[in-house]
Amino acid sequence: MTLREVAIKNEKNKIFDAICSYEDISLEELIKNLSKGYVVIPHNKNSNLKRPYAVGKGLKTKINANIGSSKGLPSLENELKKLKIALENGAHAIMDLSTGGDINEIRKAIRENCDVPLGTVPIYQVAVESVEKKIDIINMSVDHMFETILQQAEEGIDFMTIHAGLTLESVKRLKNSKRIMGVVSRGGSLLLNWMTYNNKENPFYEHFDRLLDIAREHDVTLSLGDGLRPGCIEDASDAAQFHELIILGELTLRAWDKDVQVMIEGPGHMPMDQIPANMILQKKLCHGAPFYVLGPLVTDIAPGYDHITSAIGGAIAAANGADFLCYVTPAEHLKLPSEDDVKEGVIAARIAAHAADIVKGIPSAREKDKKMSEARHNLNWQEQVTLSIDPIKASLYHHESGKFEGETCTMCGEYCAIKHYKNAMQNQLN
Amino acid sequence: MTLREVAIKNEKNKIFDAICSYEDISLEELIKNLSKGYVVIPHNKNSNLKRPYAVGKGLKTKINANIGSSKGLPSLENELKKLKIALENGAHAIMDLSTGGDINEIRKAIRENCDVPLGTVPIYQVAVESVEKKIDIINMSVDHMFETILQQAEEGIDFMTIHAGLTLESVKRLKNSKRIMGVVSRGGSLLLNWMTYNNKENPFYEHFDRLLDIAREHDVTLSLGDGLRPGCIEDASDAAQFHELIILGELTLRAWDKDVQVMIEGPGHMPMDQIPANMILQKKLCHGAPFYVLGPLVTDIAPGYDHITSAIGGAIAAANGADFLCYVTPAEHLKLPSEDDVKEGVIAARIAAHAADIVKGIPSAREKDKKMSEARHNLNWQEQVTLSIDPIKASLYHHESGKFEGETCTMCGEYCAIKHYKNAMQNQLN
Repeated sequence: MTLREVAIKNEKNKIFDAICSYEDISLEELIKNLSKGYVVIPHNKNSNLKRPYAVGKGLKTKINANIGSSKGLPSLENELKKLKIALENGAHAIMDLSTGGDINEIRKAIRENCDVPLGTVPIYQVAVESVEKKIDIINMSVDHMFETILQQAEEGIDFMTIHAGLTLESVKRLKNSKRIMGVVSRGGSLLLNWMTYNNKENPFYEHFDRLLDIAREHDVTLSLGDGLRPGCIEDASDAAQFHELIILGELTLRAWDKDVQVMIEGPGHMPMDQIPANMILQKKLCHGAPFYVLGPLVTDIAPGYDHITSAIGGAIAAANGADFLCYVTPAEHLKLPSEDDVKEGVIAARIAAHAADIVKGIPSAREKDKKMSEARHNLNWQEQVTLSIDPIKASLYHHESGKFEGETCTMCGEYCAIKHYKNAMQNQLN
Repeated sequence: MTLREVAIKNEKNKIFDAICSYEDISLEELIKNLSKGYVVIPHNKNSNLKRPYAVGKGLKTKINANIGSSKGLPSLENELKKLKIALENGAHAIMDLSTGGDINEIRKAIRENCDVPLGTVPIYQVAVESVEKKIDIINMSVDHMFETILQQAEEGIDFMTIHAGLTLESVKRLKNSKRIMGVVSRGGSLLLNWMTYNNKENPFYEHFDRLLDIAREHDVTLSLGDGLRPGCIEDASDAAQFHELIILGELTLRAWDKDVQVMIEGPGHMPMDQIPANMILQKKLCHGAPFYVLGPLVTDIAPGYDHITSAIGGAIAAANGADFLCYVTPAEHLKLPSEDDVKEGVIAARIAAHAADIVKGIPSAREKDKKMSEARHNLNWQEQVTLSIDPIKASLYHHESGKFEGETCTMCGEYCAIKHYKNAMQNQLN
């Protein structure tokens, strides 16, 4: 049984208990939202996660960190270091997007060292193995695609990005669009290339039931990919993007019918004012399935700082209903991220998620800010450091402040507002 | 005549021409909004700025960088370095908040080296000079306050933060509030301390006409400070904050009557969902005067990363009407910012301002993103670097990408979506 099936049958499960305890919600609420499809627990039957997480309605906003090698940087060791940094800094899920080196070995090593949900984009493995066998990407075989998905499912991958909504019908809309960037999804562009060359329907759409059978058997959560997500501000919210979303909504119902867990992937690059509408429409068109967004990046002009452009968009997205934020690192658009980039990306995404959780009404979120404010008011520096989203950086900066003048920091010194406010309150009592 | 008076009399001025050229707006529009008070040009008669900027309705969102010494870090040299970095990275205005070392010398040196509008908070000088003369802050003299403002006006300071709205009436609301952080405005807390100890009204409120006379004579733009801005998420949008805002709205009309330019300062720390309401109410209560916000920071728990918490809040604020963003650096809440912190703060604020300008409908904003997207589509790396908000970092990251495989970067290598999308489009033509 998938966890969706367990929930529908209203049965108990130790994973549910772990989730309820972390989220501080009742088992009843979790089971209700899981059975309706509003919540997913990406947890392969074979993965036995030490730290399972749920994603969706009424829950804390989760964040994912993408790692993975490329041909230019194929080292397993580097990816394990990035994994460690992502987990230490609070990523709730990891995606291995490796395309360089021995990608099967890398994926297995990441799985062994990853105690949170692990996701992949299986079409990458198909493409890499095809190229290794000197098979052009336009000649990737359909069986290879499904065998790869099965292989990864058996290995215990918890969620997989499958671009099943990028159909020949949506390609028509793409052709009629005036996009600057066209397709910026790697998986989407590989499939598009295959589809247009062979003039054939997307295999994941055409053989969606074959996909569902594998996903059901292993309880792989499908992360229905947005191959047509906008890759720049100008391309956002066009017909191609929404045509794909409509199809993803249809596929969601088919997955639910087979008790397969589903979440939906979303943009991308987008002007701030379009983000709320996109979140509302995704939830509507996809029947309340959890929404997993990459960004959105609210401007195109800040390469080197896309963790910030993404934190702005991600916070707005999550405040308007997005459930799961894929981090974006400062390296986006420029290079494969370094370890430092991974850390910066995770922290920025956590800030966005937390800012949104404050307004989503997650009670524990606001409680954290309250405790920090009390520590600030009390000029209790140790407590401020401990409560920080990144205690290491907070501590470093705090110590750089050097010798304290009494209780205050080098920012204001004796002109500290907190100190003078306390004096003023004392004046009023006297 | 102040520039407001010039506009009301519909006269010409070479500063107006510079503004219109930079903003790409008509002289008619600028004069209309200036005379209504919807736009200010912070430009002291004595400052002769090489790069004047206007702030307000229909204009690009501007950003300010706070620099200034403290007792623990009193070096003039450091502050001049920070000034240089702030200007090089695109700050449209600078505020000198020095409280350590020879603050008069520091301010004059900054003025000499600053070709954009320069602001101060004169009460800091009053406090520092009082302490130097062994006068307790509660005994600062009212004449000293106004003489300091006059001195700085004569030196060519373009805008001054004056906390004139923090009255005994608003202090009542503060007493009745259940704030955690109380008052976090340095200037506000000094005045509050003075007012409560002496049981006297705020001198800047009581003698507001004396202030207006100086401001009018030198065309100093008043930046009416929010001494009661919320200092944490829990304290946002309370009666004390809005009581002060109501008074600032009344003072705005009095200033306009004397042809003095005014902008209004705003929060602070604030949950994301309260930001739009705050922006709308400020514009309404203050009769359309430009809004200058410090943040808002959308969570309290990220010391070390408050340039990001502030970029999220600042972008939302500006998209909803804020005109001027005061940067926040990663050092906020922890220490006086370093040169690196200044750079990070300026860039983050520029990202927020630009993301907002895209949705505010500033035509040149969207044009920049379009050009960047075209450069990306063409894999034109040099152009991407040139168009970046920080070409130095973009170039560094780009070069770290190492040897290119053909035209693509180490992120995706041969699996570059842009490359495969182009192949797919080629397939369709064949």
